[in-house]
Amino acid sequence: MRKIALILTLVLVFSLTLSAVTFAQDEIRIGVTIPSADHGWTGGVVYWAQQAIKDWEAKTDNITFFLETADSPATQVSVVEDLMIKEIDALVILAHDSAPLTPVVKQASEEGIYVVSVDRGLTEPVADIYVAGDNPGLGRVSGEWMAKELNGEGDIVVLEGIPCVINTQRVEAFEKVMEQYPGITIMDSQPANWSTQKGLEIMENYLQKYDKIDAVWAQDDDVLKGVLQAYEESGRDDIKFFLGGAGSKDIVKMVMEGSDLVRADVTYPPSMIATGISMAVKAMQGETLDGFYQNELPSEVILRAELITEENAENYYFPDSVF
Amino acid sequence: MRKIALILTLVLVFSLTLSAVTFAQDEIRIGVTIPSADHGWTGGVVYWAQQAIKDWEAKTDNITFFLETADSPATQVSVVEDLMIKEIDALVILAHDSAPLTPVVKQASEEGIYVVSVDRGLTEPVADIYVAGDNPGLGRVSGEWMAKELNGEGDIVVLEGIPCVINTQRVEAFEKVMEQYPGITIMDSQPANWSTQKGLEIMENYLQKYDKIDAVWAQDDDVLKGVLQAYEESGRDDIKFFLGGAGSKDIVKMVMEGSDLVRADVTYPPSMIATGISMAVKAMQGETLDGFYQNELPSEVILRAELITEENAENYYFPDSVF
Repeated sequence: MRKIALILTLVLVFSLTLSAVTFAQDEIRIGVTIPSADHGWTGGVVYWAQQAIKDWEAKTDNITFFLETADSPATQVSVVEDLMIKEIDALVILAHDSAPLTPVVKQASEEGIYVVSVDRGLTEPVADIYVAGDNPGLGRVSGEWMAKELNGEGDIVVLEGIPCVINTQRVEAFEKVMEQYPGITIMDSQPANWSTQKGLEIMENYLQKYDKIDAVWAQDDDVLKGVLQAYEESGRDDIKFFLGGAGSKDIVKMVMEGSDLVRADVTYPPSMIATGISMAVKAMQGETLDGFYQNELPSEVILRAELITEENAENYYFPDSVF
Repeated sequence: MRKIALILTLVLVFSLTLSAVTFAQDEIRIGVTIPSADHGWTGGVVYWAQQAIKDWEAKTDNITFFLETADSPATQVSVVEDLMIKEIDALVILAHDSAPLTPVVKQASEEGIYVVSVDRGLTEPVADIYVAGDNPGLGRVSGEWMAKELNGEGDIVVLEGIPCVINTQRVEAFEKVMEQYPGITIMDSQPANWSTQKGLEIMENYLQKYDKIDAVWAQDDDVLKGVLQAYEESGRDDIKFFLGGAGSKDIVKMVMEGSDLVRADVTYPPSMIATGISMAVKAMQGETLDGFYQNELPSEVILRAELITEENAENYYFPDSVF
């Protein structure tokens, strides 16, 4: 028993030493700035920023977080200036708009602040690490799932996002998959601007134009809501299934509950801001990633567009989030 | 003491349970294929592939690795076919050449094999995850360090790599940094093809052409060796410092030992293959990365071009590696 007591004493001493080390750590100050929003994808960003801060506060003693939302690019520039006055060590930013935010973030970087840029990149390489979603991946995973679900046969319609690089990357990757399935025809592809109302209007138009539609790719869950409303109001029953995108809780819930019309979703996760916050914490703690043969964190991480189906939907369902 | 004995018993039971779980795991088969080489950067790739396999074999009981080098694209195609016959679950590939390898890797992917592509991408998006070095980052970090070391003043010469996308990314990022320093002039920039011999020749030429050179960016440690030889043979002493790139052990050793002429290096790490192998293991174990708010691994990771100086060089010095 003496041996055991000795071991326990050693464990105790070791634990106390660890605690002492923890308390001796320098204070780390991390600023987080994101667009303000109370609904939709950016609402999810606010939720996940709060969530990550809660998680890290529970796990660490020496980190002070400053979370600031901004309702315009100009406001966000001021926010970054304020955060610099607060002497932050690291800045995590989901930029309202790339161009107007780049100069102030560059200034922060030149002052030695570690910069994590999330989702919307900056126009100069001033970030230490860039964390983003996978837009071609979203199109590809969506296309592959739909083609499989259609057994390679069918007439589909597409509702695109706002015409921009992100939308082009998604749509081109989707079309590239469909080129491999000669039995599938994309009858129409129009911009619905990631808007529920516009989704409703475009879908009403498609339903008038085409007597038979086998499946719909809405690319976005907000658009999908408008699309589903138009389909319901039409009274038709020819469409086999619909696919949105991003992973909103309402749509994930439908998938989880075994909806016949909405059987899958593909992530473009607002939780990317939470991953970005983790990267800032790890950089400040001098950590690299587990399994990486590097001394520092990567400079760029593209998060996977993950396929959500009935089998795994509960892992993607966050009832407390607004999105 | 009874309480302690109970706790220890519980710990023991828990440990035994864990062991049982470990033994009950399915066998995982991971194939790794890389270009064969006994020197230079690809020699480092061979070393790091072996190293990562050793590390994971020490940490796990249920993974069988197959490491196959290939001396040509055609051989590597056969290697991948052989690995498929060996019923691998995951394939980690540093492709000899992108185009000839893409069809067979696509076939592997279609058979359900998880594909990790390292460094040289494939021409179609058939990899589940892409792990690569940061070429613009290498140019940028090199430029920033040199500009600082020159206090923004000086005449420099550049030795480029083989004219190709990678070289262009590095050189453009380097030049972009230098544009911010009007006191620095890039007098010349010629391709040295990442070759020691060509580095020697170009540098001899530069030394004849320019009476005064303040610093040299060789972009690559193999080239730097030729450059240093030419400089030594010239008997001149005007050049303040030289910067290579990639992080070979000979050059890192010079940095570590406080060389006056070679004070830094920038990584383009052959250990990226080891990180790629870790990603395959983690994917097979159903793990994500620590601190990531995702259910799966990222789809793309760009590893940082890390700055090596006398202060941190020992973390980058691997005497057992051939590179």
